[in-house]
Amino acid sequence: MGGENPGRRRPQAVKALVFEKGRARVREVYPPRLRRGFARVRVLLSGICNTDLELLRGYHSFSGIPGHEFVGYVEGPADSAWTGKRVVGEINLGCGKCALCRGGLSRHCPRRRVLGILGHPGAHAELLTLPESNLREVPENVSDEQAVFTEPLAAACEILDQVAVSGETRAAVLGAGKLGTLCAAVLRNAGADVAVVKRGSRARERSFDLVVEATGSPAGMPRALALVQPRGTIVLKSTHHAPARFDAAPLVVNEVTVVGSRCGRFEPALEHLRRRTIDVRPLLSGQFPLARAGRALAEAARPGVRKVLVRPGP
Amino acid sequence: MGGENPGRRRPQAVKALVFEKGRARVREVYPPRLRRGFARVRVLLSGICNTDLELLRGYHSFSGIPGHEFVGYVEGPADSAWTGKRVVGEINLGCGKCALCRGGLSRHCPRRRVLGILGHPGAHAELLTLPESNLREVPENVSDEQAVFTEPLAAACEILDQVAVSGETRAAVLGAGKLGTLCAAVLRNAGADVAVVKRGSRARERSFDLVVEATGSPAGMPRALALVQPRGTIVLKSTHHAPARFDAAPLVVNEVTVVGSRCGRFEPALEHLRRRTIDVRPLLSGQFPLARAGRALAEAARPGVRKVLVRPGP
Repeated sequence: MGGENPGRRRPQAVKALVFEKGRARVREVYPPRLRRGFARVRVLLSGICNTDLELLRGYHSFSGIPGHEFVGYVEGPADSAWTGKRVVGEINLGCGKCALCRGGLSRHCPRRRVLGILGHPGAHAELLTLPESNLREVPENVSDEQAVFTEPLAAACEILDQVAVSGETRAAVLGAGKLGTLCAAVLRNAGADVAVVKRGSRARERSFDLVVEATGSPAGMPRALALVQPRGTIVLKSTHHAPARFDAAPLVVNEVTVVGSRCGRFEPALEHLRRRTIDVRPLLSGQFPLARAGRALAEAARPGVRKVLVRPGP
Repeated sequence: MGGENPGRRRPQAVKALVFEKGRARVREVYPPRLRRGFARVRVLLSGICNTDLELLRGYHSFSGIPGHEFVGYVEGPADSAWTGKRVVGEINLGCGKCALCRGGLSRHCPRRRVLGILGHPGAHAELLTLPESNLREVPENVSDEQAVFTEPLAAACEILDQVAVSGETRAAVLGAGKLGTLCAAVLRNAGADVAVVKRGSRARERSFDLVVEATGSPAGMPRALALVQPRGTIVLKSTHHAPARFDAAPLVVNEVTVVGSRCGRFEPALEHLRRRTIDVRPLLSGQFPLARAGRALAEAARPGVRKVLVRPGP
């Protein structure tokens, strides 16, 4: 074998953002050994997601390297067809054996690990590893800054895999943050009439076929229940550490459907970026070198700030 | 005009169960004047629903005559084609003009009144009135005791109008009360493999395509979320006065769909009773004369007691 011998050579230490006991710091770590079927990716840019901020606050009792939005170059193994390609990567690592994995739903595998969230070191680092089957090549005309939006844009596109949306759909998106803005763009592109409802803004109650709850706050659900019409649908996008608390009677009485919605397929998102049908650039708020990732997190947590990127390279 | 002149003659006082300020008593009341298009029904039997008990506890700030499950004889007006027929009745009185009413969804009309629940005197009385369009004739081979189950059985059948159920469906029904038992019977009849999960009983987590939450308790929702498999469906049947409180993150992460489910069409329920495909008789716990309706309520509230009927007639 002319290629690398996975699992033998101790990889070099690299810089990474590490969460430990509620604190964030940048330090040297050893990336995981390269198992068979995995690729090593040198990260060009990573994006800070609200989930990263939640993880720092204690969600999932997380410790380790966060980050699940990235674009990078495949560096190895040398004998891989992926090496040298610019890629983004799906974040769920299924077991590959269970019924869900075999049915193409490895993102729901009960034994899955999740890049930068659950059991697999994340993207706010110089290097990461992912199974080659998780990688997607970035089209040439998509910049690094756009490509790093693939994962959140895929999460927005997931709505269209779950709910029928057409030119007849009157939709409200609660939350004017990053995810809400992407959801609104995806729904508009699918033909829906979309109102973005910010905190404190007025909207007619019981008047929307579809309400997307992307506030990131437990207050979003009662608001969504007030806005949706009888027999309408609420897509629940927010995950937050605090439990939901609301009067469920209107949900039953008005026969509302609530659809939990998380990650999506990368293909529709990359297609939007390639064809420029959704412009993610207005969502960019700033960029920090990895050495200043703590500062980047603080910036991302400020109200009104949208996507903050971390650049591990020079 | 040979018939009655609706709205002129003051109707005779009749006996009814009345809820006032959290207390239940039987007293004489005047039934509402008979408006055009309405029929007057002499109640043969009425059924006590958990909703009646919730109304007594303060749900909807209700005061008036409760009761929405009944079978009776149409007594007038004399010129109605319905007079003399044995009937059950759909409980929602829509405005008849809005888009929902025109689309056949008057049970979701925002201006609807609801028999014995909202703005229209209920069935725990000697007489009630309903629009003729709400009435359904009871097949001859269905007894009064069976017919009074039409409304709750229709609510159970509603699940099949909302969710695809087949011989492949692995379903769990939470709650072994009246509604839970009817839901389990309807799902079995549709071919599903059904486990009835009582409080404290064990069931494998994340293993059901479909979970019907019919516990009548805020504790039902977290349990349902634990039992449903990723991308599965929870049908929420419980309405209760206490707000729901649960960790919504699994709902989002596992992309679960929650479907609120309330009243259903009467036709499938009457068809089950006529063809004897569902036997409701094991659900009967007792029968009380209207004069002892307070005792009937207390009996219905006892743990393990199922359907308690009230007989207004002699």
